[in-house]
Amino acid sequence: MQIKISELREKIIMLLKNMSAADAAIVADYLVWAEMSGISTQGIVKLSGNSSLQNIIPKHPIKIERETGVSAVLDGGINVGILVSDRAAEIAIEKARANGIAIVGVRNIFSSNGAQSYYVEKIARADLVGIMCSRSPGTVAPFGSIDPLFGTNPVGYAFPTTGDPIVFDAATSAMTFYGLVVAKARGEKIPAGIGTDKNGNPTINPGDVIDGGAVTPFGNSYKAAGFGMLVELLSGPLIGGAFLDYKTFDQEWGATIIAINPAILTDLDKFKKSCSEFVATIRNSRTRAGGKIRMPHDQARRLYASAAATGMVEVDDVIYNSIFK
Amino acid sequence: MQIKISELREKIIMLLKNMSAADAAIVADYLVWAEMSGISTQGIVKLSGNSSLQNIIPKHPIKIERETGVSAVLDGGINVGILVSDRAAEIAIEKARANGIAIVGVRNIFSSNGAQSYYVEKIARADLVGIMCSRSPGTVAPFGSIDPLFGTNPVGYAFPTTGDPIVFDAATSAMTFYGLVVAKARGEKIPAGIGTDKNGNPTINPGDVIDGGAVTPFGNSYKAAGFGMLVELLSGPLIGGAFLDYKTFDQEWGATIIAINPAILTDLDKFKKSCSEFVATIRNSRTRAGGKIRMPHDQARRLYASAAATGMVEVDDVIYNSIFK
Repeated sequence: MQIKISELREKIIMLLKNMSAADAAIVADYLVWAEMSGISTQGIVKLSGNSSLQNIIPKHPIKIERETGVSAVLDGGINVGILVSDRAAEIAIEKARANGIAIVGVRNIFSSNGAQSYYVEKIARADLVGIMCSRSPGTVAPFGSIDPLFGTNPVGYAFPTTGDPIVFDAATSAMTFYGLVVAKARGEKIPAGIGTDKNGNPTINPGDVIDGGAVTPFGNSYKAAGFGMLVELLSGPLIGGAFLDYKTFDQEWGATIIAINPAILTDLDKFKKSCSEFVATIRNSRTRAGGKIRMPHDQARRLYASAAATGMVEVDDVIYNSIFK
Repeated sequence: MQIKISELREKIIMLLKNMSAADAAIVADYLVWAEMSGISTQGIVKLSGNSSLQNIIPKHPIKIERETGVSAVLDGGINVGILVSDRAAEIAIEKARANGIAIVGVRNIFSSNGAQSYYVEKIARADLVGIMCSRSPGTVAPFGSIDPLFGTNPVGYAFPTTGDPIVFDAATSAMTFYGLVVAKARGEKIPAGIGTDKNGNPTINPGDVIDGGAVTPFGNSYKAAGFGMLVELLSGPLIGGAFLDYKTFDQEWGATIIAINPAILTDLDKFKKSCSEFVATIRNSRTRAGGKIRMPHDQARRLYASAAATGMVEVDDVIYNSIFK
């Protein structure tokens, strides 16, 4: 169904009545962005089901545990991951602007912070390079293992150009956890070769994977496993957070953001022009079938622009009705 | 053949007579390390053939182009990549120790800097987290493209533990350029599905790939392509260097090193213990066949230790004789 963007935003804010108005606005901005961008797996679905964002009771307000001119670690106090991560991105922007580079970690957040692209694009629009990674409860087996030790551990990055930033965002797993949950709910199978059950036997049944099994790193590659391990280390041990496990599925998620001010390394204008030329060169490169190359995030940006132009956004009827009716 | 490590090192230093003694020692240390670690594709082979390290004539000494308390960019002046990258790693260590985090770029270096693991392990042994990536001449097609725009673009990282660091190092391509060269020299084929010729047609002939064709990102995955793109951006445009191309195959390579002092984010001792626990948990996780999990770099470390214990190192006869006889 199509719904007015302003109406969706208002309904979300009314639902988030346990938060301050300012915090509710931050979470609503993210959720509306995700729906407008067609990233519905990371959108208002977070307001549905048993562990919905509007029903959580944080343990304590967000605390800055450690801080230097180039770093901070936020103890999220089991607040909504989106809220804590957005604050972390703002801190990273501020510190990188002032001191050239910054690393900011968040730990003890409630569930996923959603799409990494949201935070890194915000950083890139401040003329900084943004890199972000997040660890999540164990779902992926290290290469050669059958135990679900790594999270699906996405990495996102964004680079400013003279126009829209270059944006990339992907899980280091062959499938997202949400993908497993949806497949199970719909009674669908998952592709062969990417899942094992709790005994390490190959399975195409998503329920068997969720129940103590594991998915492979993307491409079932030891290289992808290496990137997943990097995410686990950066957003776990390095920020004093949980790693290779979780106490509950709703707590102890972590994320790390690095923001870099290009002006400490090169001329900012030259850099942005180079990044624009970078995009143009890739878009104009040859394809086998003769078509154009798509850049990551192209579809999300097109959908967002289209929604913004009409003031209307497409949302999933079933999910919408389960939340707002 | 087996050769005394001390003899190999001495012979390398004598060959590098165009360099200062201090610089020759740095390059020899790297090359001996690579041979001892069994990483012969990144070892003394660099002293053989048409563009051997000992025969290059740099354009100018290494220059620090830009510098802040948390950053530096080195213009390599087409000096040996190993030399410039080693200096960059030292600078990154110094700045991260002093100011918490550092990013150091090198551009205009002669050919590859070798294995990223060498530099990042050095950083980790200084109780810092090291992450390094390098761009190389275009060999890999962006996802969907048939043009060789990205380099094979390796990423390395290392994390300190209470014992040996966690070390990972891998190209973001399905095959290294050196792998193509060796396959061609031996008249061997490459695996199906990872190479295209200059017209974008699939090929298993390494010569066709080298001659204007391309290899895929690892796993032929858009996610791997995204990591290759990140490397190209970080070690190209961000440090004011070449990108998506090269003027000669021997110049304009680039690399970027990030060093992070864990103490700005958490307690150093707790961090190192967590990283040790991290390794133990993975090693002790279950495998399907019941064996032990190997961590990345295990084999290199075992070979290095074995060489160090005996004082002897195994080198390739053909390569050794082509250089030293």
